Amino acid sequence: MPHAKTSTTSRPSRRGVLFGGAAAGLGAIAALGIDSLTSTAAPAGASEPLHGHTMIPFYGAHQAGITTEPQTHATYIALNLRDALDCESLGRLLRLLSDDAARLTQGQAALADTEPELGAVPARLTVTFGFGPKLVELAGSSATAIQPLQKFTIDQLEESWNDGDLLLHIASDDPLTVAHAQRMLLKDARRYASVKWVQTGFRRARGSETSGTTMRNLFGQIDGTVNPSTETEDFNTLVWNADGSTTMVIRRIRMDVDTWDEVDRSGREFSVGRTLANGAPTTGTKEHDEPDFEATDALGLTVIAAHSHIRRARSENTTERIFRRGYNYDDLPSGSEVSNSGLIFVSYQKSVTKQYAPMQQRLADLDALNQWTTPIGSAVFLIPPGCAEGGFIGETLFMA
Amino acid sequence: MPHAKTSTTSRPSRRGVLFGGAAAGLGAIAALGIDSLTSTAAPAGASEPLHGHTMIPFYGAHQAGITTEPQTHATYIALNLRDALDCESLGRLLRLLSDDAARLTQGQAALADTEPELGAVPARLTVTFGFGPKLVELAGSSATAIQPLQKFTIDQLEESWNDGDLLLHIASDDPLTVAHAQRMLLKDARRYASVKWVQTGFRRARGSETSGTTMRNLFGQIDGTVNPSTETEDFNTLVWNADGSTTMVIRRIRMDVDTWDEVDRSGREFSVGRTLANGAPTTGTKEHDEPDFEATDALGLTVIAAHSHIRRARSENTTERIFRRGYNYDDLPSGSEVSNSGLIFVSYQKSVTKQYAPMQQRLADLDALNQWTTPIGSAVFLIPPGCAEGGFIGETLFMA
Repeated sequence: MPHAKTSTTSRPSRRGVLFGGAAAGLGAIAALGIDSLTSTAAPAGASEPLHGHTMIPFYGAHQAGITTEPQTHATYIALNLRDALDCESLGRLLRLLSDDAARLTQGQAALADTEPELGAVPARLTVTFGFGPKLVELAGSSATAIQPLQKFTIDQLEESWNDGDLLLHIASDDPLTVAHAQRMLLKDARRYASVKWVQTGFRRARGSETSGTTMRNLFGQIDGTVNPSTETEDFNTLVWNADGSTTMVIRRIRMDVDTWDEVDRSGREFSVGRTLANGAPTTGTKEHDEPDFEATDALGLTVIAAHSHIRRARSENTTERIFRRGYNYDDLPSGSEVSNSGLIFVSYQKSVTKQYAPMQQRLADLDALNQWTTPIGSAVFLIPPGCAEGGFIGETLFMA
Repeated sequence: MPHAKTSTTSRPSRRGVLFGGAAAGLGAIAALGIDSLTSTAAPAGASEPLHGHTMIPFYGAHQAGITTEPQTHATYIALNLRDALDCESLGRLLRLLSDDAARLTQGQAALADTEPELGAVPARLTVTFGFGPKLVELAGSSATAIQPLQKFTIDQLEESWNDGDLLLHIASDDPLTVAHAQRMLLKDARRYASVKWVQTGFRRARGSETSGTTMRNLFGQIDGTVNPSTETEDFNTLVWNADGSTTMVIRRIRMDVDTWDEVDRSGREFSVGRTLANGAPTTGTKEHDEPDFEATDALGLTVIAAHSHIRRARSENTTERIFRRGYNYDDLPSGSEVSNSGLIFVSYQKSVTKQYAPMQQRLADLDALNQWTTPIGSAVFLIPPGCAEGGFIGETLFMA
């Protein structure tokens, strides 16, 4: 008798039944932490929980897109300001782009959006702005200055991947959303600036793996195990300046997957100091086990070699730490290339000089991984604080 | 009292609580049609249902990746066979690649896979093979021949996007999975073939929208409303040959989003014959309403113009239909470009000559959309039947 309702004269469609199930199961779904069904209207006919309408607030003390759990897709665009641009025009540009970002991230059409339907699915869209040295200078801020990064001996930088005046970092779990936001922002920016470079990156799709799983790079390595948690006081100390700003290093690191493939599994693990299976240090069993740099093998050699990546990256000085949030890239191979792959290395830190540079210097001096990796692009950006509704990103520089 | 359990001495983590909720709610989730939690083990700590382990069978009467509901990401790679390649080597290549595909699509490492962990999340990976004219000839089949497509007056084909001997069509909901499969297949193919072109496409992310939603292209149009359902007899008649094969047309269509942006909304809808809001014909209200080509407005003009895209695409001859399964592309703009965007048009049909060509000829003769679109690449491939375990894709050609 409790099932009598299914025997109605018009047989419900499979979708209808499923959606009925969805409504009945909302309590359980809320318990699962699925935000899309609970925070937004569930679309009719849904047969699995949707996350397209999940939104990340744009306004706040800090810009979004840094402590945000990394989205599947990220595009980094460096713009060069047009030569004649003055401070006033720069302000207009930043107001315009901030307004676009505020709307698009909330699933609303940007002003003069000619394809508003493409923006209706934010899927955790964030737009984060970064300012290069020239922009900071043009804004006239005396309080803040930003220096290009020194060149390291391992660098084989290509000018076409270096520097830039204004960085747009656009990220979402949905690639069409990224494409639309990119288009809207570039349309509004083009009177003021031209594209210097575009780097497109990806991680695992949302829902492919458990949320919070450390990413793998295209060498198959678990990449980014040692990273300060965004929820700790440590993070505040390492990343955020008092005014809510931070500094970003972005480096394009080509990975030679062909020569890497010639190395056997134990050789690979030896060069990094971690296992490929789960990223545990070769002296441990679990990813987040502390590496034991003193442990020795039967021959009396340290298990984690002195030139291994994790040994060289580690400093005794705990202030020399950074927050990493990088992406893989895999662009079209050209000519006889089988791949054009690598890592878009991205780190955030209060001080490039005190935190990032000493670590990178150690790795440039000696790191077993250098044999297969080459930095080919490098840029540093000031990431200004977030803003409140009615404000715009960068406003504090104009006031300073 | 029912809540007393939360006051244990060791406070459960938020994740633990969520996962507890997940286990309790499995019944409701099964009712939602979520396959990942029911068909595979839920990973510990999961806070939302995962789909990374959903697999599409490789073996079967037809190749996968055609009736498969389109995955988020698709990469199409055209290879040119090396000049000296003989029929026997070609057989070896096809056996090798079929074996790779059979394993990778099931989340297993390919033979000699040096990054097996990257392949552990298939996320509906499919690998579909297509054969160009030269490959078919080399296999020595007398029963099958494949002709390059005629050139249409609207075409501005660039040799670098045309033709190819062997097509690898790799698709998954996860971009890292696509990158890994691409790398494995190209590694195994490189002794036999070189890359002619690579086209990378995307749709909305899995979970962004309700499954089965018609895609939007980068003009913001709902694209592909008129498409035979894969579950009907009609589909069999239009697409599958008796032996399980079909034919694929792939055309790279550049879309000039800048000039499109100059057209207002009603002008855009008039040029297509459908509304932008939901893709309904301008004589209807819902996407799948039949267009009324006779309906006239107050001035006595037909509401759907004679040169509109949907009027020109439609034939009175119902055999002149195709099955579309295209993707958006949005590559890096170069120089002063703001976008490098378009559509990877893909269609499947029994006969290119009888089904695709007459429709394309009508559109080449007259189609309002031609003002903003330009075909810049074109290729035709035979899609051989699927194979059984132990067999390989293309085996029937060698037997013929």
